Amino acid sequence: MKKLMNEAGSVVEDALRGMAAAHPSLRVEGGVVYRAEAKRGRVALVSGGGSGHEPLHAGFVGFGMLDAACPGEIFTSPTPDPIVAATIGTDGGAGVLHIVKNYTGDVLNFELAGEMVEGVEVASVLVDDDVAVLDSLYTAGRRGTGATVFVEKIAGALAEEGAPLAEVARVAADVDARSRSFGVALTSCTTPAAGKPTFDLPGDQVELGIGIHGEPGRSRVRLAGARELAEIAVEAVHGDLPFQDDLLVMVNGMGGTPLIELYGVFAEVEAFVRGKGARVARSLVGNYVTSLDMQGFSLSVCRADDELLRLWDAPVSTPGLRWGR
Amino acid sequence: MKKLMNEAGSVVEDALRGMAAAHPSLRVEGGVVYRAEAKRGRVALVSGGGSGHEPLHAGFVGFGMLDAACPGEIFTSPTPDPIVAATIGTDGGAGVLHIVKNYTGDVLNFELAGEMVEGVEVASVLVDDDVAVLDSLYTAGRRGTGATVFVEKIAGALAEEGAPLAEVARVAADVDARSRSFGVALTSCTTPAAGKPTFDLPGDQVELGIGIHGEPGRSRVRLAGARELAEIAVEAVHGDLPFQDDLLVMVNGMGGTPLIELYGVFAEVEAFVRGKGARVARSLVGNYVTSLDMQGFSLSVCRADDELLRLWDAPVSTPGLRWGR
Repeated sequence: MKKLMNEAGSVVEDALRGMAAAHPSLRVEGGVVYRAEAKRGRVALVSGGGSGHEPLHAGFVGFGMLDAACPGEIFTSPTPDPIVAATIGTDGGAGVLHIVKNYTGDVLNFELAGEMVEGVEVASVLVDDDVAVLDSLYTAGRRGTGATVFVEKIAGALAEEGAPLAEVARVAADVDARSRSFGVALTSCTTPAAGKPTFDLPGDQVELGIGIHGEPGRSRVRLAGARELAEIAVEAVHGDLPFQDDLLVMVNGMGGTPLIELYGVFAEVEAFVRGKGARVARSLVGNYVTSLDMQGFSLSVCRADDELLRLWDAPVSTPGLRWGR
Repeated sequence: MKKLMNEAGSVVEDALRGMAAAHPSLRVEGGVVYRAEAKRGRVALVSGGGSGHEPLHAGFVGFGMLDAACPGEIFTSPTPDPIVAATIGTDGGAGVLHIVKNYTGDVLNFELAGEMVEGVEVASVLVDDDVAVLDSLYTAGRRGTGATVFVEKIAGALAEEGAPLAEVARVAADVDARSRSFGVALTSCTTPAAGKPTFDLPGDQVELGIGIHGEPGRSRVRLAGARELAEIAVEAVHGDLPFQDDLLVMVNGMGGTPLIELYGVFAEVEAFVRGKGARVARSLVGNYVTSLDMQGFSLSVCRADDELLRLWDAPVSTPGLRWGR
């Protein structure tokens, strides 16, 4: 294993030091990443989960998106304590929305944290967009993956406009309900602690429906071309929730895949979407929800409407996503 | 070799299709990437070079940065023809600046293109920031690497303000003169055409001073921690042009390295910079000048002044770099 790190046990801590040093807009305290300048009087958004998916979640803290992120150790849920601190620390009197990816540990610890907090109105939205498998290694029900970016961006825009907690929670859940994802792995990821690939994948095979922690997908097939792999992902997503009108589409890199390859995949995805009579209204191509050094991509699609597109287009200023400001 | 591609020969073409589909702000014509909406009456910036370094260069086309990029095939200079087309196509009457990384093929073809263009005032700036080696596999003199981002961003801001060609060229050359870079590879890159790693690097070694096409560096050493590797890069850069006052610092991923590791490296770099009595005034951490799927990082440092920081902070809106707009 070759990694740029000091020791396996300090990877997350070292990265948080780096984030704080690189981004004056962020403040790191007690292992929680906050906006340096909090805005009071509006709903706050808190997310979190295991590390190793950067820029998710800490890279999405900032204007128009999250107020705080609670990173756990690599692929490990944060404990309730930092979630409690983040919830209390970001509440501006209008309540806090927890955005939780559907993994058993995350769900449990956010739930516990919500019960431990006193005097803060807390709502929660579960992200469970991955159509690959029902129930998985760390999950009851569908896994939460790429749609988290859609939920955090759109709910963040709404919170920034001053919408009340119930409304922000409702729209966040609606975005999740409209979103589906599917991932394809060319290689396994390697966690710093294990020091060897999480799973074995022969040199001529790909894993379809991979999870972002290397959880097994649906099947393995012979390595195919970008067009064929894009079609498999498109059909998996479209087959679960048929494309319609305007779509938000993300072709996301798993961490070790060059951008030039992701654009090649996006070209195929866009053509398939058109072929189904729908339209890519907005898109992201790049590394947003990664799995350490895994090679591969995931496709996430959200059936948007005018209001969701308006919120998507609203200014955002975070290390991982920035426009209009 | 596992890559997301249709065939080795169509990787660049497929990616350009994807870029055009993903970014309405771009227009691809004759293999050249242009801003969809050209602004007339100001200096235009044209860059280019071999593909495989994404987002460089095409991902830096847009407001506040390049007017056009000419991507060659993977690690292969563009021919003079598209450079001629880009130069004529972007000239708004105030002339065109060619930003050229110092590789023999790039230098030759941009020079030829400059001679072939009639009726357009053309100036040229050479980027040669890599302190690792003097003369290399494809280069006489120092290689041009990470500082290209500094040059393109700062010259782009100046052009946007309406500065004349001579002034934009002077400042671009000044940014290059103030900038130094050094790269470290954990693994080789693999080009689609070759299908196997460009060079062999044993599992317990790293290559210091790597080039962005896998050209040999200074030496190989045993794989060390992030702190030690950061120190080697810092000392190489600082030893060539001592740090002073305010610095622009980029910790750049080579394509296959997770963001969490790059932040860890940045934390160490920032501490070493402080230790030398200088200050990281602005920073970038992420994939900006990549080498396909190579794992590793490069450090680029520019000794900035107030005027350069002002131009750095000016709004920019490209797929690869965006803020303030």
